[in-house]
Amino acid sequence: MEAPGMLFVPQRFLCLGIRTQLLKTVSSLRSFRFSALATMASKHKNAKRIEGLDSNVWTWLVDLVTLVSLRVEFTKVAADPSIVNLGQGLPDISPPSYVKEELAKAAAVDRLNQYTRGFGHPALVKVLSQVYEKICGRKIDPYTDILVTVGGYGSLFSAMQALIEEGDEVIIIEPFYDCYEPMVKMAGAKPVFIPLRYKKAGNSASSADWVLDPTELASKFNSKTKAIILNTPHNPIGKVYTKEELQLIADLCIKHDSLCISDEVYEWLVYTGNKHIKIATLPGMWERTVTIGSAGKTYSVTGWKLGWSIGPQHLIKHLQVVQQNTLYTCSTPLQEALAQAFLIDFKRMDDPDCYFYSLSRELEGKRNRMAQLLQEVGLKPVIPEGGYFMIVDVSALDVDLSDMVEDRPYDYKFVTWMIKSKKLSAIPLTAFCGLETKEQFEKYIRFCFIKQDSTLDAAEMILKKWSKQIA
Amino acid sequence: MEAPGMLFVPQRFLCLGIRTQLLKTVSSLRSFRFSALATMASKHKNAKRIEGLDSNVWTWLVDLVTLVSLRVEFTKVAADPSIVNLGQGLPDISPPSYVKEELAKAAAVDRLNQYTRGFGHPALVKVLSQVYEKICGRKIDPYTDILVTVGGYGSLFSAMQALIEEGDEVIIIEPFYDCYEPMVKMAGAKPVFIPLRYKKAGNSASSADWVLDPTELASKFNSKTKAIILNTPHNPIGKVYTKEELQLIADLCIKHDSLCISDEVYEWLVYTGNKHIKIATLPGMWERTVTIGSAGKTYSVTGWKLGWSIGPQHLIKHLQVVQQNTLYTCSTPLQEALAQAFLIDFKRMDDPDCYFYSLSRELEGKRNRMAQLLQEVGLKPVIPEGGYFMIVDVSALDVDLSDMVEDRPYDYKFVTWMIKSKKLSAIPLTAFCGLETKEQFEKYIRFCFIKQDSTLDAAEMILKKWSKQIA
Ligand SMILES: Cc1ncc(COP(=O)(O)O)c(C=O)c1O
Ligand SMILES: Cc1ncc(COP(=O)(O)O)c(C=O)c1O
Repeated sequence: MEAPGMLFVPQRFLCLGIRTQLLKTVSSLRSFRFSALATMASKHKNAKRIEGLDSNVWTWLVDLVTLVSLRVEFTKVAADPSIVNLGQGLPDISPPSYVKEELAKAAAVDRLNQYTRGFGHPALVKVLSQVYEKICGRKIDPYTDILVTVGGYGSLFSAMQALIEEGDEVIIIEPFYDCYEPMVKMAGAKPVFIPLRYKKAGNSASSADWVLDPTELASKFNSKTKAIILNTPHNPIGKVYTKEELQLIADLCIKHDSLCISDEVYEWLVYTGNKHIKIATLPGMWERTVTIGSAGKTYSVTGWKLGWSIGPQHLIKHLQVVQQNTLYTCSTPLQEALAQAFLIDFKRMDDPDCYFYSLSRELEGKRNRMAQLLQEVGLKPVIPEGGYFMIVDVSALDVDLSDMVEDRPYDYKFVTWMIKSKKLSAIPLTAFCGLETKEQFEKYIRFCFIKQDSTLDAAEMILKKWSKQIA
Repeated sequence: MEAPGMLFVPQRFLCLGIRTQLLKTVSSLRSFRFSALATMASKHKNAKRIEGLDSNVWTWLVDLVTLVSLRVEFTKVAADPSIVNLGQGLPDISPPSYVKEELAKAAAVDRLNQYTRGFGHPALVKVLSQVYEKICGRKIDPYTDILVTVGGYGSLFSAMQALIEEGDEVIIIEPFYDCYEPMVKMAGAKPVFIPLRYKKAGNSASSADWVLDPTELASKFNSKTKAIILNTPHNPIGKVYTKEELQLIADLCIKHDSLCISDEVYEWLVYTGNKHIKIATLPGMWERTVTIGSAGKTYSVTGWKLGWSIGPQHLIKHLQVVQQNTLYTCSTPLQEALAQAFLIDFKRMDDPDCYFYSLSRELEGKRNRMAQLLQEVGLKPVIPEGGYFMIVDVSALDVDLSDMVEDRPYDYKFVTWMIKSKKLSAIPLTAFCGLETKEQFEKYIRFCFIKQDSTLDAAEMILKKWSKQIA
């Protein structure tokens, strides 16, 4: 589980200054996993649909980071960033002030604290339709073509539950945002994996070096292929699919009458020389695509957990039925605040100051700084074209981890070693792969660079010290 | 679908002053329902799990209220409460000011706008454990025994998905909060209905007149009975189950090793002479009960959509897995604000000023006022012991609706008539029943009385005029 909020729960706890709860959580998590189910009567067992879906990259990391933290004698934990956390996919930069202010404003209005329309607060779906009409160059009905959900995560879930079932196959491109696989399984379908393959394109390492093999991709489609899950800009690699690459996928979807679930939560975060293209805008694709967006990623407020699915009425209406029977409606004050924020940026979409563009400019600087720092210690960063993650080849360092007893891929061991001996955290890339492809990615780890300068400074200190040790 | 936010979408729209969208929505809803699916290829169809679950009491009411509204020539709609809406289960009273203020405060803190722990924000689960430890008189581990969800609704959903599956039977007591049935079906299980039966207890009509028949209840349990869904205080009747009634259910659960999903979202709202008892506190029940609560109902902020499931670790851990694979985490600023509000009231739980008690005192006055008004026109209110709904027997009025062509139970027709000719809205009770029990409840409609005085004044005007017409 990539577990946005959980991967580094300890650090979150530390941030929030709730140090004492930490130990408790860890021990609770332990007993959670090892509880003696054997003694329980059958009626207390879980439903089969979630069997084996309590996966554990996050529990592994929680334990690891916690254990390491505990060995360090913090006095003022919050002030002592002993472990610099570049793993966690969450911004520590400030969200735009108007976004925070709009939430405070909405909170003050009585009726905005009560239920709103189940499929999306009217003000929000209206402005979403305006923004996406502008991008897609087509009419988007706010009431039939949009569903507001609990995060992009919730959109993925409702799409799968609405459209996918036993007997279906769903193509997942590796590496992948780690909830795709359990969600497909929870819907009763079979995930069919295809890896992005390394194919050197230019001189410097880039996320564009990772591509789908057209023949291999075609071989994955068949009459059972209900859908393919696409993610562009891509987490964890940072790849931004080109028009040609998208056309390849579109052609296969159309040929096999398959759907496309297009996770575009990082849609605004593309760097110089790249352009985000929506597969739904390719001919014949609108009617078979559910496009997913996220307020958390758009406005650097991951804690808001609002997202949306956009697509043709004949698909979205099924997602709406899922929503009706799962949570009914999302938070009104958050939706109102998000609507107001979008109104501000919709009006300046032709202006470079629009947050959609200013954030990616800010991040491009952070990306470049991070790449350079990593290179200095001999790590080989793969420069992302979009998103806020960067994968790094750690094999050149040749760290000998053979004495580690853990039965884990190399990247897990490397991260363990790096956290323990360098106090720097990242995410092992095989956490984003199916079982069979682990080998292809176990020399990589993922860093997150949507971090304030002081966090990057702390990382720089660690990396400079590290580089001296190597020299 | 009871559809908390949708039943009266039009009024919501009107409140929010978005009049023009109204027509659009209605026509969209129409085409949504009648869209020509026939032409769609099979891969665009919904998954079987949601087949037939797009039920429609709300679309019916949306259309009805809208059509009526449109006939009235509003100039300033928001200022003209032409239809007084006592149907919708949402407060129009002000939530406590500290609750709104805490949300504004949380919004201002950067890190409280980012992801938090997936199973519940640490500060929130901690205070929830304190509050419920005090009520239940037992240890509740904040990390293993609690899951924070998107409303009580989300808690119901995760409990069903986690614990219920094909081959299971789930007992539902009629009338019931209307998502229970589709949720059980979406989990693949069979709903087994048992009605509350009318048995006059005292002199005046009371929700206590509605009881389970012990023999009938026992006959519903068998080896397939995975769970019973209990709701106390009850929506729509307002019944507060007594200890003896709960013991009856508990005995059967224990005998058949069945679980109990106990929806207690109205737990604080009990009126003089009644006491809310948690079935989880009965001997042998903690280990088989998931107890569900709601921030929306506790603090009159239905728009916040936060809820929680509390129970033994061996059950809650399965709900946690569902959460991991559906939405991962709930909103941080809302959870932080709710935690702060709970801290305030936890500290004064022995003080009558605690909101948990002051709200129900305030509502008791509204309940009494409403009952009297309804009596004056010849409607027969059933005085609720808890919650904020009141059902009303309309048969004494003997309104002749035989000329209505609609193929609907009497209560639907009555509400249609009442909205059209009295400009007063309520909910037909058969919306809360399975097919076979409709006859038993079709003489009742449900009013909601968590309304500010001006709304009740408007209802009073309508009712007084009505009563003069009768006289
Ligand atoms: C590719 C991808 N999709 C979806 C999500 C979930 O987004 P949200 O936080 O809006 O649920 C994430 C979050 O990390 C992500 O990286
Ligand atoms: C009995 C009952 N359970 C659950 C809910 C849903 O609560 P929430 O708004 O917290 O999801 C409601 C709302 O009306 C209800 O009446």
